[in-house]
Amino acid sequence: MTVRFTVEARDGGTEARAGVIATERGSFRTPAFLPVGTAAAVKGVWPGQLRDMGYGCILGNTYHLYLRPGAGRIRGQGGLHRFMGWEGLILTDSGGFQIFSMSALRKVSDEAVAFRSHVDGSLHTLTPELAVEVQEALGSDIRMVLDECVEYPADRKEVEDAVRRTTLWARRSLAAATLSDGGMFGIVQGGMHPDLRRRSAEEICSLPFPGYAIGGVSVGEGKELLRETVSVSAPLLPREKPRYLMGVGTPGDILFAVSRGVDLFDCVLPTRNARNGMMFTSEGAMSIKQARYADDPLPPDARCGCPTCRSFSRAYLRHLYRQREMLASMAMTVHNLHFYAKLMERAREAISRGNFGELVKESAVSGID
Amino acid sequence: MTVRFTVEARDGGTEARAGVIATERGSFRTPAFLPVGTAAAVKGVWPGQLRDMGYGCILGNTYHLYLRPGAGRIRGQGGLHRFMGWEGLILTDSGGFQIFSMSALRKVSDEAVAFRSHVDGSLHTLTPELAVEVQEALGSDIRMVLDECVEYPADRKEVEDAVRRTTLWARRSLAAATLSDGGMFGIVQGGMHPDLRRRSAEEICSLPFPGYAIGGVSVGEGKELLRETVSVSAPLLPREKPRYLMGVGTPGDILFAVSRGVDLFDCVLPTRNARNGMMFTSEGAMSIKQARYADDPLPPDARCGCPTCRSFSRAYLRHLYRQREMLASMAMTVHNLHFYAKLMERAREAISRGNFGELVKESAVSGID
Repeated sequence: MTVRFTVEARDGGTEARAGVIATERGSFRTPAFLPVGTAAAVKGVWPGQLRDMGYGCILGNTYHLYLRPGAGRIRGQGGLHRFMGWEGLILTDSGGFQIFSMSALRKVSDEAVAFRSHVDGSLHTLTPELAVEVQEALGSDIRMVLDECVEYPADRKEVEDAVRRTTLWARRSLAAATLSDGGMFGIVQGGMHPDLRRRSAEEICSLPFPGYAIGGVSVGEGKELLRETVSVSAPLLPREKPRYLMGVGTPGDILFAVSRGVDLFDCVLPTRNARNGMMFTSEGAMSIKQARYADDPLPPDARCGCPTCRSFSRAYLRHLYRQREMLASMAMTVHNLHFYAKLMERAREAISRGNFGELVKESAVSGID
Repeated sequence: MTVRFTVEARDGGTEARAGVIATERGSFRTPAFLPVGTAAAVKGVWPGQLRDMGYGCILGNTYHLYLRPGAGRIRGQGGLHRFMGWEGLILTDSGGFQIFSMSALRKVSDEAVAFRSHVDGSLHTLTPELAVEVQEALGSDIRMVLDECVEYPADRKEVEDAVRRTTLWARRSLAAATLSDGGMFGIVQGGMHPDLRRRSAEEICSLPFPGYAIGGVSVGEGKELLRETVSVSAPLLPREKPRYLMGVGTPGDILFAVSRGVDLFDCVLPTRNARNGMMFTSEGAMSIKQARYADDPLPPDARCGCPTCRSFSRAYLRHLYRQREMLASMAMTVHNLHFYAKLMERAREAISRGNFGELVKESAVSGID
């Protein structure tokens, strides 16, 4: 497995670090945000637009791709990169999170998780080995082990079980891996219990993964507990390997986690919110639905240089949104993804200068959260 | 009024001509196809993509813009070009066609047409003067007179009435015009009756418009009658002015009309069909829904150099279409508009070489219709 992580700069006052993740296919700078390409497409944008925004890696959802169009079909087309015309890197999740959040009638045992497809109700069984096989068929550069994600709140016993099973599955995943390109990351569970996070981290980090993820967050625990859990979990992961906080999050949560030493993030927020008319700006969130924008000739964010802000006014975007024009979602998605790309770029620059704490403070003052 | 039309080349064997339409704002080459930007957006594409494909003029629907967001609002934003971030030219229709095809409870008199909005049922009255006023508020470069469009089939008496009223309204439109930039085109009616087409053309072409349109087609008459009507109508319009065939059409119908001396076209076909999974290719129409494309690694059209054909396979587009991903509509719209842009470019080149008839024959053999 060859996922190489090079730390190029460490912040002075925080745990933040800037680096590069490289695989056979290419590399991208960290801290990095990965746009979510659920069904082999980041909704509303062309691959070339993602590249132009500076994205070097996107996320694909194994659960969705496994169900439609199927991993065999994608492998037959030369793999996920070629299938979707994406020249950068791809990280795939294991499908576990979606099974636990979207599918019906799921039944977990140490052996496997059985579930019914949310699409057609068909019955499926996912084992750690199958999760590896599917991701290898997709040909993603970074693959995730199947883990058991527990919702919040949950009994301590449930979380303990998930920690035990996640370690069991991590070992089986390593044994099942056949692909030498790229690599597979382990995932730490443990709910919101610091001692279980510690136990899970000890078990998972004793296994030879080239990177480690904090899973089991963004499951309804709220901002405060999320941040506490990140603060507890991040230091438990080895400093020389990339740390990935799965499914997070808001710009504020991302900056917080970067300050705790996290390197990778993915979240549907910028893309999903765009489709709901919500834009991230340098002065906080903006809902384009509001009547006060009906005649507003200003761009969404005067300090933004994205294609949307260069061409379109708030009045125009509000009109498009109300008319349900595709261009509304397209334009606001580009704006939000540009915002996230710039946020990560500014984070990397601040870390290199050694004043990342200043960026966090400034952002909070601007209303970014 | 300053719409200048310069014929730069005439085909040898047909009536086809290649030229340039210029206004204060800029110019574009003819024969030209105008993508339809119904609600101040060509569905699924960025303005920059239209420009990159070579489009110099698009069409805006006055009926839709008058209802939402309203002409006053668009004028307040600096006009339609600035509102939608479009740097090329814009032709607006008068709203008449949509009133006759979309609205409920319409009532026509010599004075005006009263109708109920298809959006909220509200009652409106459109006069020729208001159609001019609304289009001038939008700031379009080429504006169309309000005409009475009769569906097919219709009583001869109805068509006669529409011809009379269309001339009456054309005179009132000219009297109402206040804008000196760009210009307003007259519209010839007359249904599928050659003698009424002649009467309408004589009346309308006696009025000092800088261009003339053939209206009242694409109303259910079928391909044969459409082409007969174009053959009858086009020669009735002055050779030195641009001729515009409204709401047409298929690639084959466009090539046919070009051979009869028509210069301008608009139609929702390439954009609407794209959203329904139908693509125009050099070998005829292709429906991406078909199961046989599920594992097809080829681009939609091997002879096409559009961004879609350069990056995406049939298998991928079929997957996107089935998943209802926005990118399906976006990619197929770009492909179809690129196809139309290339078709017009090839038409202009063939006319300049003097062998336009060859292009028409070749296209028919390829299955383009």
